[in-house]
Amino acid sequence: MQQPPPATPGMPEDEVDTPALLIDLDAFEHNLDTMAAAVQAGGIKLRAHAKTHKSPVIAHLQMARGAVGQCVQKVSEAEILAWGGVPDILVSNQIVGAAKLARFAALSRIARMAICVDHPAQVAALEQAASAAGQRLTVLVEIDVGMGRCGVPAGPEAVALCQRIAASPHLRFGGLQAYNGRAQHLRSHAERRAAISMAAETTARCIDDLRRHGLACAIVGGGGTGTYPFEIASGVYTELQAGSYCFMDADYSRNLDADGTATSPFRQALFVLATVMSRPGPGIAVVDAGHKAYAVDSGLPLVWQRPDIQVSGASDEHGKLVFGSETSPPALGEKLRLVPGHCDPTVDRYDWYVGIRKGRVECLWPVAARGAAT
Amino acid sequence: MQQPPPATPGMPEDEVDTPALLIDLDAFEHNLDTMAAAVQAGGIKLRAHAKTHKSPVIAHLQMARGAVGQCVQKVSEAEILAWGGVPDILVSNQIVGAAKLARFAALSRIARMAICVDHPAQVAALEQAASAAGQRLTVLVEIDVGMGRCGVPAGPEAVALCQRIAASPHLRFGGLQAYNGRAQHLRSHAERRAAISMAAETTARCIDDLRRHGLACAIVGGGGTGTYPFEIASGVYTELQAGSYCFMDADYSRNLDADGTATSPFRQALFVLATVMSRPGPGIAVVDAGHKAYAVDSGLPLVWQRPDIQVSGASDEHGKLVFGSETSPPALGEKLRLVPGHCDPTVDRYDWYVGIRKGRVECLWPVAARGAAT
Repeated sequence: MQQPPPATPGMPEDEVDTPALLIDLDAFEHNLDTMAAAVQAGGIKLRAHAKTHKSPVIAHLQMARGAVGQCVQKVSEAEILAWGGVPDILVSNQIVGAAKLARFAALSRIARMAICVDHPAQVAALEQAASAAGQRLTVLVEIDVGMGRCGVPAGPEAVALCQRIAASPHLRFGGLQAYNGRAQHLRSHAERRAAISMAAETTARCIDDLRRHGLACAIVGGGGTGTYPFEIASGVYTELQAGSYCFMDADYSRNLDADGTATSPFRQALFVLATVMSRPGPGIAVVDAGHKAYAVDSGLPLVWQRPDIQVSGASDEHGKLVFGSETSPPALGEKLRLVPGHCDPTVDRYDWYVGIRKGRVECLWPVAARGAAT
Repeated sequence: MQQPPPATPGMPEDEVDTPALLIDLDAFEHNLDTMAAAVQAGGIKLRAHAKTHKSPVIAHLQMARGAVGQCVQKVSEAEILAWGGVPDILVSNQIVGAAKLARFAALSRIARMAICVDHPAQVAALEQAASAAGQRLTVLVEIDVGMGRCGVPAGPEAVALCQRIAASPHLRFGGLQAYNGRAQHLRSHAERRAAISMAAETTARCIDDLRRHGLACAIVGGGGTGTYPFEIASGVYTELQAGSYCFMDADYSRNLDADGTATSPFRQALFVLATVMSRPGPGIAVVDAGHKAYAVDSGLPLVWQRPDIQVSGASDEHGKLVFGSETSPPALGEKLRLVPGHCDPTVDRYDWYVGIRKGRVECLWPVAARGAAT
């Protein structure tokens, strides 16, 4: 069952039921504007990643600022976006299984769709799905540019796979997917620059190889919130796929710039609002938000603008806060904003965004593709 | 939006769409029967914890085998159970906030409800909610028996809190909540026995103190899947609150028995079914299930009955498998069962259970209280 919204428009933030997923709308809009300006100045397109926000509302806000469309990782996410009016969607991932591919092909009737492969068997399955649906589907090849996850090596294997797509009667070769996710959270500027320099060189060589074989890459996609200035500067990519920039999280806040400071152009816009539910002793408070309320795969949450309070541990429904004797202790019933360690899987735990501006609830947006994992 | 079910009854397991949350029904029923026999033999009641399963269907299966009711951690979970016909529910947790307490009081019209406190302010708020609803509410005091999370210390503070409840016109003193969650995953039998021995002694002293003050504890609740034999043996507890026993997980499978082996009486009954979506190179496969498909707070999943394959890492939508050259590599499209590291927060990511028996889908059950976090 979908949970009811934890707030109503107009309500003060302090009355929002907890745990709740808050968007600071001023910070969020600043982030959308900042990325839109960066891609415009860089002469590159933005195809923002909806795996972060899972929301047609946010997709449309990104496209209103110039984004050409959206990326997703799953067919079920693509369905939610296409049904919500998003006209241009890239599944930046491999999809295996006839039922899923039939669903993907069906979406091509209402949106401009593309998908990635890294194996000849996936090309054959897509050709079959396209033929059965009477569609021509656009297919990109994912190359491994240093992530060590999916993707074929750039070189003859990649060229052969692209040729196989181009030779399939119901498929259209769409370009290259060249994302290095591992580089996004390398802490130093120099490490991230070096990783994307290698990724861009690998990708450029592959584009040249394909050109020599008569194949043009309409899309060369990659880049994320941690590295996008390097993908822009490379001149190799045509589309950025950043997702987290709209919200940010504690993990991204630890990335360092060239001068060794953490001064991201993006502001923290996503919070888990929690209530102090127990004050069992001095220096300890417990909030009503634990593993089911935020992802801990990239570390525990931070308490927003309270560096004197640390989240020392979490259990399923509890977060334990500790603080020193010099701290004014949070009161029973007090509400605190937590900054999630990792925004994407945190968002996926909620049915509703609560949009806040000037201390009041301005809007409720469904996390429409929450749980869309197939 | 709730996601559609990934299967239909009668379908072979291999056709279930992935990622999917599977219940091996034979193992699950074995677990329900095993715990029912243990509490019957021990002369203690079972109030199984629905924070694990979030399902009125499973609650009723537990009660059909003798469980007296259910525990929950949240009012929204209590609502889903009460609306689904569960007649006896203990919120084994502190609830703070007038709106939540009004919802709790409203449920008392259709189910026998109880709730925990660890602070006088919570008693005052409950008295107010009970009075406003024209109800008499049952309230337990949570004492800290070694967990170091919520709860008052056993002793004068606990007695004073119990007396305050008993003196409140719209409240009824219901007993003690005395759960040591930290003890559940102590790996050695001796450590778990020692931890619960201390918890039981502390609880027994508190019961005696209260008796001297004329207060009887109708419920003395605690115990979990990792320690329940010790709570039974103590003679102090009236109700066990185990939850995970119905499903089990990789973390519980690492607990050791008295002879130093991991020989739980419970069988692994919960799985995340995943599909191999990429075979990027020798010794590596990638499945379509990552952080959004299983909790990693207690470690990465295991591959069921494939000790030769390890989950070496996860990202949001991907799980990376590694194996040696002697392993017959999983094929692209092959489906594998993963054993989640931690069952409770894994279940909370899904809308549907897919019940499997003899290789086929027997039933679909909604994870009705998925996301019920308020």
